[in-house]
Amino acid sequence: MKNIKLEFTYNGQNYYGIQKQKNKKTIQGEIENALKELFKQDLSLIIAGRTDRGVSAKKMVANFLVETKIEPKRISYALNALLPDDIRIISSEEVDINFHARHSVKQKTYKYCLYESKIKLPLFPFETQFKNELNFKLMKKAIKFFVGTKDFTSFASKSEIVDKVRTIYKTKITKTKIDGINHYSFYFTGNGFLYNQIRIMVGTLVLVGLKKIKPNDIKLIIDCKNRAKAGAVMPPEGLMLESVNYV
Amino acid sequence: MKNIKLEFTYNGQNYYGIQKQKNKKTIQGEIENALKELFKQDLSLIIAGRTDRGVSAKKMVANFLVETKIEPKRISYALNALLPDDIRIISSEEVDINFHARHSVKQKTYKYCLYESKIKLPLFPFETQFKNELNFKLMKKAIKFFVGTKDFTSFASKSEIVDKVRTIYKTKITKTKIDGINHYSFYFTGNGFLYNQIRIMVGTLVLVGLKKIKPNDIKLIIDCKNRAKAGAVMPPEGLMLESVNYV
Repeated sequence: MKNIKLEFTYNGQNYYGIQKQKNKKTIQGEIENALKELFKQDLSLIIAGRTDRGVSAKKMVANFLVETKIEPKRISYALNALLPDDIRIISSEEVDINFHARHSVKQKTYKYCLYESKIKLPLFPFETQFKNELNFKLMKKAIKFFVGTKDFTSFASKSEIVDKVRTIYKTKITKTKIDGINHYSFYFTGNGFLYNQIRIMVGTLVLVGLKKIKPNDIKLIIDCKNRAKAGAVMPPEGLMLESVNYV
Repeated sequence: MKNIKLEFTYNGQNYYGIQKQKNKKTIQGEIENALKELFKQDLSLIIAGRTDRGVSAKKMVANFLVETKIEPKRISYALNALLPDDIRIISSEEVDINFHARHSVKQKTYKYCLYESKIKLPLFPFETQFKNELNFKLMKKAIKFFVGTKDFTSFASKSEIVDKVRTIYKTKITKTKIDGINHYSFYFTGNGFLYNQIRIMVGTLVLVGLKKIKPNDIKLIIDCKNRAKAGAVMPPEGLMLESVNYV
């Protein structure tokens, strides 16, 4: 039995998220279909984590167990020939039998992108339109309050997960002007994130950018462990899984 | 009668080009439909130039004549409410009655983008995949040979246009490394371009980048006025109309 690790990238905008769902087009569903066609058997893909409907990934990781004579490196080519264009396997390799794409994760990095414009621009499909002016310095100050091991209850949509403590190792925010339009990218690296956590953290940071709350209000919102105190869930198109790390 | 100038942007990937065609989805067709709905009459849009099936524009210009009491600036908002998301009117304004979006053009700038990768990346919809390694220095040397007033017969697909003389004022090529992948952008500013000219010029520059021809072969290919001597027509997705200038 071989344990095969896949690295893959996808444009999630035409999918109901990564996780397999009955009668819905999902990333996992498409890859498992391709695996079935290639190996002539049902194989279960273990994915590093979930991404929601409409969310994309620059680099996602998964693994599966299979008895095969196909050279591990060549599995990626074979799968790409069977997959739709918006999902591409970057690499395939045999890894230690104990490697588990979800349990072995050490860090994940997400990026959230938005641009300030009254008009929704059709040439930036992976960024969210934001109609009002944001203050970069204030958001830059605010994002640092997310770093550390904290209970992120205030930044999680309803889910069955009881333990809401997560560690964020690093945050970053950048501002770039393209043709007179401000583009912002928010980066978060952590050991794991709760359901909608990134999108709610960004939804709270834009409240800071709009001067509706102050940078160190982030600290208070974390402390009060009350979802109602944080901002809205930002739209999915601006969210991108950047990378998953195992060391 | 008012002469209204529109600036607009579009993702052309789901359209059969800009120019109106019977029973086919085109940019002009969509805008004229929106104009008909707004003004309750058939209005003809004069467009700065053609873009082919699958080609996008950061900023295209058009004008139309109309008798209306709607404030010119507000026409853009009204049209955006009627247009599909992948076409957005950036601005609308009343201009001199003699302004003609096509005849008055002074300069157009096009950009062509490609990236070197064995895998077609789903997160770069406006760039063309190129599987082999390109030499940047050689292409940078070569692109300069296109500057000037020349007969571009070698770089035009079949068309009824007899006069193939055009002036290219400026060219530029940039190379950016993103996550270990080389991305190239080719820029051309000219008084006008022939059918498929940009895509064939880039198709010839990549022959230089592949060392199949030398930079100053570009000069010879221009001189021989023979389409067969130039490179292939590059795919449409990497082509973008950057801007149209009237002064």
